[in-house]
Amino acid sequence: MPQLRIAMAQVNTTVGDISANADLIVEWAERAWRAGADIVLFPEMALTGYPVEDLALRQSFVEASRISIARLASRLHGGGFGELVAVVGYLDRTDEPDHRRGGYPQNVAAVLHDGRIVARYAKHHLPNYGVFDEYRYFKPGNELQVLRIRGVDVAVAICEDLWQDGGPVAAAREAEAGLLAVINASPYERDKDDTRGELVSRRAIEAGCPLTYVNLVGGQDELVFDGDTMIAGTDGAITVRALQFVEDLIVADLHLAAATAPLKTEPAATIPTQPGQSGMIIKRHLISEAGEPPAQRIEPKIAKPLSAMAEIYLALVMGLRDYCNKNGITRVFLGLSGGIDSSLVATLACDAIGAENVYGISNPSAYSSEHSRTDAAELAARTGLHFTTVPIGPAVDAFHGMIDIDGVAAENLQARIRAIIWMAESNQHGPSIVLACGNKSELAVGYSTIYGDAVGGFAPIKDVPKTWVWKLARWRNDQARERGETPPIPENSISKEPSAELRPGQRDTDSLPPYEVLDDILNDYVEGDRGRSEIVAMGFDPKLVDRVIRMVDRAEYKRRQYPPGTKISFKAFGRDRRLPITNGWREGR
Amino acid sequence: MPQLRIAMAQVNTTVGDISANADLIVEWAERAWRAGADIVLFPEMALTGYPVEDLALRQSFVEASRISIARLASRLHGGGFGELVAVVGYLDRTDEPDHRRGGYPQNVAAVLHDGRIVARYAKHHLPNYGVFDEYRYFKPGNELQVLRIRGVDVAVAICEDLWQDGGPVAAAREAEAGLLAVINASPYERDKDDTRGELVSRRAIEAGCPLTYVNLVGGQDELVFDGDTMIAGTDGAITVRALQFVEDLIVADLHLAAATAPLKTEPAATIPTQPGQSGMIIKRHLISEAGEPPAQRIEPKIAKPLSAMAEIYLALVMGLRDYCNKNGITRVFLGLSGGIDSSLVATLACDAIGAENVYGISNPSAYSSEHSRTDAAELAARTGLHFTTVPIGPAVDAFHGMIDIDGVAAENLQARIRAIIWMAESNQHGPSIVLACGNKSELAVGYSTIYGDAVGGFAPIKDVPKTWVWKLARWRNDQARERGETPPIPENSISKEPSAELRPGQRDTDSLPPYEVLDDILNDYVEGDRGRSEIVAMGFDPKLVDRVIRMVDRAEYKRRQYPPGTKISFKAFGRDRRLPITNGWREGR
Repeated sequence: MPQLRIAMAQVNTTVGDISANADLIVEWAERAWRAGADIVLFPEMALTGYPVEDLALRQSFVEASRISIARLASRLHGGGFGELVAVVGYLDRTDEPDHRRGGYPQNVAAVLHDGRIVARYAKHHLPNYGVFDEYRYFKPGNELQVLRIRGVDVAVAICEDLWQDGGPVAAAREAEAGLLAVINASPYERDKDDTRGELVSRRAIEAGCPLTYVNLVGGQDELVFDGDTMIAGTDGAITVRALQFVEDLIVADLHLAAATAPLKTEPAATIPTQPGQSGMIIKRHLISEAGEPPAQRIEPKIAKPLSAMAEIYLALVMGLRDYCNKNGITRVFLGLSGGIDSSLVATLACDAIGAENVYGISNPSAYSSEHSRTDAAELAARTGLHFTTVPIGPAVDAFHGMIDIDGVAAENLQARIRAIIWMAESNQHGPSIVLACGNKSELAVGYSTIYGDAVGGFAPIKDVPKTWVWKLARWRNDQARERGETPPIPENSISKEPSAELRPGQRDTDSLPPYEVLDDILNDYVEGDRGRSEIVAMGFDPKLVDRVIRMVDRAEYKRRQYPPGTKISFKAFGRDRRLPITNGWREGR
Repeated sequence: MPQLRIAMAQVNTTVGDISANADLIVEWAERAWRAGADIVLFPEMALTGYPVEDLALRQSFVEASRISIARLASRLHGGGFGELVAVVGYLDRTDEPDHRRGGYPQNVAAVLHDGRIVARYAKHHLPNYGVFDEYRYFKPGNELQVLRIRGVDVAVAICEDLWQDGGPVAAAREAEAGLLAVINASPYERDKDDTRGELVSRRAIEAGCPLTYVNLVGGQDELVFDGDTMIAGTDGAITVRALQFVEDLIVADLHLAAATAPLKTEPAATIPTQPGQSGMIIKRHLISEAGEPPAQRIEPKIAKPLSAMAEIYLALVMGLRDYCNKNGITRVFLGLSGGIDSSLVATLACDAIGAENVYGISNPSAYSSEHSRTDAAELAARTGLHFTTVPIGPAVDAFHGMIDIDGVAAENLQARIRAIIWMAESNQHGPSIVLACGNKSELAVGYSTIYGDAVGGFAPIKDVPKTWVWKLARWRNDQARERGETPPIPENSISKEPSAELRPGQRDTDSLPPYEVLDDILNDYVEGDRGRSEIVAMGFDPKLVDRVIRMVDRAEYKRRQYPPGTKISFKAFGRDRRLPITNGWREGR
């Protein structure tokens, strides 16, 4: 049985920055070659970053990607790279004429060897649900590319090709591939690693050969890619798995079936794809015949899986860090109320970009409790972030002297005065952003002041339900204790009753049901997209269900203007859940 | 030749409000029957409104639409409706099992007659570009439905079916249809009526029979539907055309070819559709054989086309009015600076919801010119809107006593203090919203203060370039003069040099190129999606092009948090143009 040494580069690219990404690819390819790899796999659209969104429709960008991949083939040739084969995701286009652009964009894996692009595989199955809009951008491909590398037939596929039945996986079996190499840009969601592991196992069995899965890592606006690069054997067993949320080069030796098929192009007639579609074409390419394996065998490694809390926490840190780093933001400002939301966001920020770059501001009002100030100061002392106090009284008085308002308008005024202070400090001391501290439960029901506590360049916990905010805070403190460090979040911030403190004695439960109940209903209505009667049938009070649904529907306009923040759930607010603002639908009416 | 009397209901529905839309459909069907119509056509998804976005994925909503269409068949039966055939767009689903939802959503035209749903036509071509995401929602249909009505074979199609080659238009010709009835929800864009008229002509010729085109009217969040209902003859000549931007029932008598084909289902084998797809199936239904035409013939009418300015102005008025009406908003607040943007927005608001519901606030600062106050007061006097003046000095002083800022941070502070005042007044006197007065040129280059002048529930002119703001203002004043009314906008607001007045002697041209040049470059970069080298090749100064492109790219984060506003261009900011915030792509680097 021939042996191949496979390297998988779990790298962090930047959307749009083709030249930096190309340099990164060269650097990691060098590392792969030094590790003795025969083949190195880079993630889906590694050269352009993912997702490029409407950049895929701009001709200048598509051409830059095409020029760069050709140049990359040259750069990975000769001296330092020997016989290395590199599979690199990039943006290409068809050659057929198009009145506007000269060809339709395609999501392609280039196979680079010996200074040339040996083969191009265009993604066959395009995701167009959730956060994905790939039918907007790409024309699907219909040719399976099979590369004979050191006597093993390696078939190539891209991400969604695994998630849908038929197509490349079935074609790989028909082509008698010895290895299915899948390059991915699969965004993180809570527990998605479990689903992904099962999927990779199942598809390896279906393809009848081992499957290598390499995924992007890093944050891009609202998405975080977690890596989770892995290999499944022909029997579906996972033999290699990378740690999530870190860049890593995974190298493995695989014993693979020797290729026997004749080297000719053939239709794969029996393959079921989309209704009415014809089967895929199998294209074969000879790169090298069988050779000697390296003397020393690399032992497979499986990283210990992260706990549910660790996974989410690391996703949030990476999402915030990469938003700052990739946008040239060096510091962040945020309001510290002593409450749990701002305490968690401040701690995340310290972990993401360092406490020395985090500026917390306490803005007490006449209604602020004593503990709102002391808890905020205590958080600052524990974490080492910069801390200042700016009481809002003078501005409150000034506005009340200028306009005649009361009730909710006066409550919102306080929140907006605070926001002005944070924004002013951020504008004065840039390049920096304000962090919005709202959680998913608040965002769902509109329990926030637009242009007040909702301001910010980024909202780190916007996809975290309130009950999980507490869990993450406790988890982070426990981690600190385990490492012998001071827990960053004051115990009182975790245990006290939540309040916006915009009027005397205010409590969140004046306006909202207890968060345990609220989060349950929101989980059904928002993530599950269930209707009123389904939710009521689960045993919730119908009046409460009606109230929560109405609050969620009415808050759509606020969510539209909310800052971006890291997606960690199956369905985040934002491009994942697209609802009209003007919406006469009333569940259960 | 048999004659059919066709009614087309150019109606204004509300997304999600199925029961109100059903009532509206019954009301207009009654009017059609009283006008002696044999058949009445309602727009695409008239029952649910359009676009319903992710409501299409909610099972409770899909089922409500299905129940309502069946009920509608009963309501349009008997006494008042006689033999009337109604074609009504709604949301349906396939019957095939789906693990989550019990079927895939479809965009369907129901043919209602004699108390029953006689036929269902599912849209074949799905748009998935620009503002459209229909692959996200709908499963395409593959059956052409042909109804024999009074001896004429009427084929049904939906909107995008006209815009793409092959499919239903070709199938209608093959089926020897006597009439092609197309129901639409086609959003307004500048000059789109010209394109649409040519398209309808061409498709009538291709189908080999007259084509009736009925379109929705009204505003839905960022979209406005302009109606523009029309009929083309077999030779492509437009014989009937409705006025844009008004509800209307268009009734026409058409002499049509008598049906001769046998009443059986058949494959339409020769039809070119998408690559690899099979042809459509033609399904035929007998409703009624030929009968006597009514004694009096209705003469065809073609409405006088609107001027380029009238079209845009009416679109902006309708977009704002429907956003208010359909969201229960009864008044609007806005800052009046005496400048052209806020003057035009205030005038639009008066035209949309009445001057008695418009509240203008002047917020002079130490840097405000005398004319900023007098021009704003003059506008109020001319239009009759409510006008108050709240100088911002006390709040400016209060903040400067609390925090140490200068430069841009201090300029932004003034804009944000104004926004707090508008929001406070709106919160105090709701249900109301603030209107943001930014134009497309400012929004493109980020020449606005986020959480300052950018605040608002709606942004009426966000898709109007600055040079067009002046043109629309002049056009509106001219209209007033022609009608013998006082021109609403003070001449000085139109003719004076634009300034944000945030520091002494500030002018827009301190930061921006002249608007004539800026708008030209933006038209190429934003609407045309052209790259740097293409734009430079047109003769613009390369340094200026680089500067403008950089400004546009950097302002993406501000646009994400900007309020919705009416789309009038080929490519509006918002769902039309989806670019990453984190974006390392630099044109021309």
